[in-house]
Amino acid sequence: MNKLEKFFNPQSIAIVGATEEAGKVGNILTKNLLELGYAGEALNHSVQGKIFLVNPKHEKLFGQKCYKNLSEIEKPVDLAIVAIPAKFVSEAVKTGIDKTKNFIIISAGFSEIGAEGKVREKELAEIAAQNNLNILGPNCLGFIIPALKLNASFAAGLPPEGDIAFVSQSGALISATLDLAVKENLRFSKIISIGNKMQMDEAEIMEYLAKDEETKVIALYLEGISDGKKFIETCQKISKPIVILKAGRTERSQKAIASHTGALAGSDLIMDAVFRKCGVIRAENLGEFFNLLEMLSRGKIPPNNSVAIVTNAGGPGVLTTDAFKNQKIQLAEFSDDLKRELKSVLPPESSVENPIDLLGDAGMERYDKVLGILGQNESIGSIIFVLTPQALTPVEKIADRIIEFGKNTAKNVTTVFIGYDQVSGSIQKMEASGLPNFLCPEEAVKALNGTRSMEHITHNTEQNINSGRREETGKILQKALDENRKALFFAEAKNIVEKYGIPTINFWTAADETVQFPAAVKVDSDKVLHKTDKQGLILDIKDKISLDEAVSKLKNNFPGENIIIQPMLPRDVELIVGLKRDPVFGPVIVAGLGGIYTEIFQIAELIVAPAGKEDIKNILLNGKLGFLFQATRGKKPYPLEKIIEIISGVQELAMESENIQEVDINPLLIYNNEKDPVAVDIKIII
Amino acid sequence: MNKLEKFFNPQSIAIVGATEEAGKVGNILTKNLLELGYAGEALNHSVQGKIFLVNPKHEKLFGQKCYKNLSEIEKPVDLAIVAIPAKFVSEAVKTGIDKTKNFIIISAGFSEIGAEGKVREKELAEIAAQNNLNILGPNCLGFIIPALKLNASFAAGLPPEGDIAFVSQSGALISATLDLAVKENLRFSKIISIGNKMQMDEAEIMEYLAKDEETKVIALYLEGISDGKKFIETCQKISKPIVILKAGRTERSQKAIASHTGALAGSDLIMDAVFRKCGVIRAENLGEFFNLLEMLSRGKIPPNNSVAIVTNAGGPGVLTTDAFKNQKIQLAEFSDDLKRELKSVLPPESSVENPIDLLGDAGMERYDKVLGILGQNESIGSIIFVLTPQALTPVEKIADRIIEFGKNTAKNVTTVFIGYDQVSGSIQKMEASGLPNFLCPEEAVKALNGTRSMEHITHNTEQNINSGRREETGKILQKALDENRKALFFAEAKNIVEKYGIPTINFWTAADETVQFPAAVKVDSDKVLHKTDKQGLILDIKDKISLDEAVSKLKNNFPGENIIIQPMLPRDVELIVGLKRDPVFGPVIVAGLGGIYTEIFQIAELIVAPAGKEDIKNILLNGKLGFLFQATRGKKPYPLEKIIEIISGVQELAMESENIQEVDINPLLIYNNEKDPVAVDIKIII
Repeated sequence: MNKLEKFFNPQSIAIVGATEEAGKVGNILTKNLLELGYAGEALNHSVQGKIFLVNPKHEKLFGQKCYKNLSEIEKPVDLAIVAIPAKFVSEAVKTGIDKTKNFIIISAGFSEIGAEGKVREKELAEIAAQNNLNILGPNCLGFIIPALKLNASFAAGLPPEGDIAFVSQSGALISATLDLAVKENLRFSKIISIGNKMQMDEAEIMEYLAKDEETKVIALYLEGISDGKKFIETCQKISKPIVILKAGRTERSQKAIASHTGALAGSDLIMDAVFRKCGVIRAENLGEFFNLLEMLSRGKIPPNNSVAIVTNAGGPGVLTTDAFKNQKIQLAEFSDDLKRELKSVLPPESSVENPIDLLGDAGMERYDKVLGILGQNESIGSIIFVLTPQALTPVEKIADRIIEFGKNTAKNVTTVFIGYDQVSGSIQKMEASGLPNFLCPEEAVKALNGTRSMEHITHNTEQNINSGRREETGKILQKALDENRKALFFAEAKNIVEKYGIPTINFWTAADETVQFPAAVKVDSDKVLHKTDKQGLILDIKDKISLDEAVSKLKNNFPGENIIIQPMLPRDVELIVGLKRDPVFGPVIVAGLGGIYTEIFQIAELIVAPAGKEDIKNILLNGKLGFLFQATRGKKPYPLEKIIEIISGVQELAMESENIQEVDINPLLIYNNEKDPVAVDIKIII
Repeated sequence: MNKLEKFFNPQSIAIVGATEEAGKVGNILTKNLLELGYAGEALNHSVQGKIFLVNPKHEKLFGQKCYKNLSEIEKPVDLAIVAIPAKFVSEAVKTGIDKTKNFIIISAGFSEIGAEGKVREKELAEIAAQNNLNILGPNCLGFIIPALKLNASFAAGLPPEGDIAFVSQSGALISATLDLAVKENLRFSKIISIGNKMQMDEAEIMEYLAKDEETKVIALYLEGISDGKKFIETCQKISKPIVILKAGRTERSQKAIASHTGALAGSDLIMDAVFRKCGVIRAENLGEFFNLLEMLSRGKIPPNNSVAIVTNAGGPGVLTTDAFKNQKIQLAEFSDDLKRELKSVLPPESSVENPIDLLGDAGMERYDKVLGILGQNESIGSIIFVLTPQALTPVEKIADRIIEFGKNTAKNVTTVFIGYDQVSGSIQKMEASGLPNFLCPEEAVKALNGTRSMEHITHNTEQNINSGRREETGKILQKALDENRKALFFAEAKNIVEKYGIPTINFWTAADETVQFPAAVKVDSDKVLHKTDKQGLILDIKDKISLDEAVSKLKNNFPGENIIIQPMLPRDVELIVGLKRDPVFGPVIVAGLGGIYTEIFQIAELIVAPAGKEDIKNILLNGKLGFLFQATRGKKPYPLEKIIEIISGVQELAMESENIQEVDINPLLIYNNEKDPVAVDIKIII
């Protein structure tokens, strides 16, 4: 049995802190449990919950016996809800350990209030660990299970029963969602407030919900993720749609970023890369979150990306088309056969291109015939019906026809009936029959697009770990550490990355007599990380005299620092390949267009390790860098396989040497002739 | 008196095509006019409209006299509405010319149906021009003026009376908007369907609305713009907010684009540039359109871009912050003084950074005190109040306090009360008092951002037209035309652009003995426009032998074509500066990052001519290319003034020589040392 089974399906609940005093959390909680049906006599539901009230100050509350503490209760308790001042919580939990393993700690006053609270939370966590408890919270609202008429929270009311599980790190958002549910037509299997996530975090709860038969869609509002690795592994195992509204997109304080890679891999972009890796559908904002839930709860997952639009309104049809810009789903390209078929049943003024415009005076006949044709067409995965109520529009009959059509097709059927008075009744009927409806075309298109963002094909991600080169690398890193350096010299970095199969540029020292021209002179110091910025780089040196001048200029500007000389190589495309270690998700590889305007172009892909070579290939080919690997406009493609090897090499380095914090290979020169890529500047930070 | 005064404020209306036959357009029209109040006896409004019915088949209709035609009517007619089959329309209009100058042609069957209809529309347009008529339509719904209880359309009902004028090229969208108005809380001064825009187009109607006292916000749904120049001039004269939902964002058929400039200047991007030029607020989609109308109709235009957020809910507060990404309005940075003041009145757990988090248990006291402080702070231009109804939230009292605050401040006050049951009453009260409310934080932020997109400061746009160089250019162009060439040779293009102050690279012919190395060899042909693509370019030639090889290779590959040789110049940043002639808006200048990946980077600005140098400067400094002109990361800025001169030069060339279709200077090499920019490749297409 799942260890949270009793937690979310309790036969009996104890409330520690129950009270009759109005306005108190313990009062709202108790009333929610006693009055909304869970403990009701007359209600017809599977569980008839038993409620035990605990409060040392009372003998009786709400007309029933009141216990001094949890241990006094003489019957089994499946779940205890604790709503007393923070300082008494640990003691109350300890007293209850023999009665139950399951606790909701409503009380605030833990890690969210600073040092004092953190101590308290640590103590509580230890009790939980030692006694194998399941604790939700602290500092949470509790949870609500509409099907059980169970509101184990201090939020008001019971939302409609349905198939969406909503897990929220914000209690306020739960209050708002409860209040909005009816209007937004959202129906819930579970609503769970996770508060401080001291112990039960998003991953553990998702794992439970993955097996929960009532739950079809897992929806989360998160501000942070507790354990990156566990999160990714959990999501990858779940086949239900997971929709996440992740707050905290803007990073206000990106002041001290040491590398280009760091600048390209903001934590929100890493989040996008993580979500892509594990097939999470990300909602951009609250409105989109609700829309995605409506779509995934009601709508079918379409069998392909191809969408047909059927409209009785030209303008709104065009607006729907517009919304397809930059989406994964696409407007279906109709075959000539299909167009011919449509043409044969529609008036000549109708458009049989996509959108199919049935015209403002369209009646049932046109809908009937067009649906007959589209129903047979397997190349179309979804149909969006756009309708405005015009003088001659039989809105209700059309809705009925679409409902019937929706029942007999594997296609996703989505409706956009734009209006209010004249369409509300039909919309309600359609929604009741399981068709998602949206107010505006763009909402429908975006939500439909979400249904196609769930793929998480992960190929073999086994990494080639090699203890020999790890050891050699370790020695080089140790030397730098011994010398109190946070960055490696070029020679050291070159030495390391070559072990990982990355071709690098040659170099000479200032004393070397064999320098070939044209050449470049660089300061090579752990203190000068941005050479271009600090003018520690002189290019295009044509002869010995200029070289000597350049070297002495740099020596002058950077006294005591290392100087190196490199050949000038022909430049075609410059890439950046780098590593950043994210505190939550670990190593992230960045591959993008490099050079001095790296941050301006922002044409980069983030790859969350471990990624197999097939995954890297897919990301490169289908992402922003895809243009490099296509033979277009007379240009030959750049060597995909060689670049994958280099990215893999950086990844292996990151995984073998955990004390490397950042790597920046920029520029990595690449060529579309036979020439190998070559790393020109290599920064390794420890 | 404005020539449309009677059109939109008629004392009497004739309906040609009136009928008692249910379901006919003429029937709906007549009923709308007779029954919704315009012609009503008992209603208390300024106009008591007279209705005349015209239909040769009847003596009487709806119990009143029916005329055979317009000329028969014995009283003055201010407006005639024509709803009869297309083929009879011209005759009906002609018969009415002596009675009125104002016509709405409802009838379809004109240019929208193809050749036959185009002939009909042309005939009608000629009648209109000869007789100085005002014709709305054909193929339109008509118009509605709620304040006059005047529905001169065949759409149903009367929307609430207010200050938004909605002009739509889609009749279906008007039907939908009418039905949605109450729900979306939109109130209208006029709703006008412009149909085929044969004569009265968006510009003419906007000009009327600019002076219309009932109208505060001008809203348009457009699929195309009739006359680009007139549109821009009209918008620039109007100080009321203009919000446009422009459909047709995606260009499906961008197959044969001759130049990079063409690829960068898609017609939708030109639309963006036009809207920016004349201060039009563009709605991205239908939802945003309605939100912008709500904001502009109710809300105040904030005095600055700085926004404070006051919330009782942490999570929704963060979501509001997130929505500020990429917006013109900004989260206010609070001064230390302000933070100290706030801190002194709030509990220690409250956040006094922006968003100000009053916490979930916030009551009136915290709102009172914080509003007292913020009301005094002039650096804040707008306040967004985010609220979720939590257990202890006095929603109504807070709403009352915000209403009071809103009445006594010049700041924009916007509310986001997230919920339904528990907040609807308060939202209605707030909206009634003139405060915009939005369902989700991101909607509020985007709509607020719209209020700050109205600036259209246009500086002196007088152009330096010089007939001397125009004539010389004309001769060069004529020579190419005589030789049946659509593109100029490099020597010709160089010769022309130099007249406009654009520095260019030198070149040698293949026979020239004075070539200096390193050099590049190019095919220079009107038939080979994309040299790189067709491998008509060989770079980095180091000596005479390689040069001879390269020349003969190109001669071989491109038999009979011109070959030129250019010096290899040092490359730093490559720009593209080009010209595209838009069929609607005329010359558009493109300035962006150039080189072979121009289309990949898409870092470009579009400048709609004529633009003064100050305007060009603002666009360059504040747009995507701004980074070039800042001294950052040790790099010196690039020469802004020199680049403005070059852009101005291309603009003057475009304005002087109207038969130049496209110009592509790519790359234009620019340097941040003393070196002048230099145009390396110049394509001029005629």
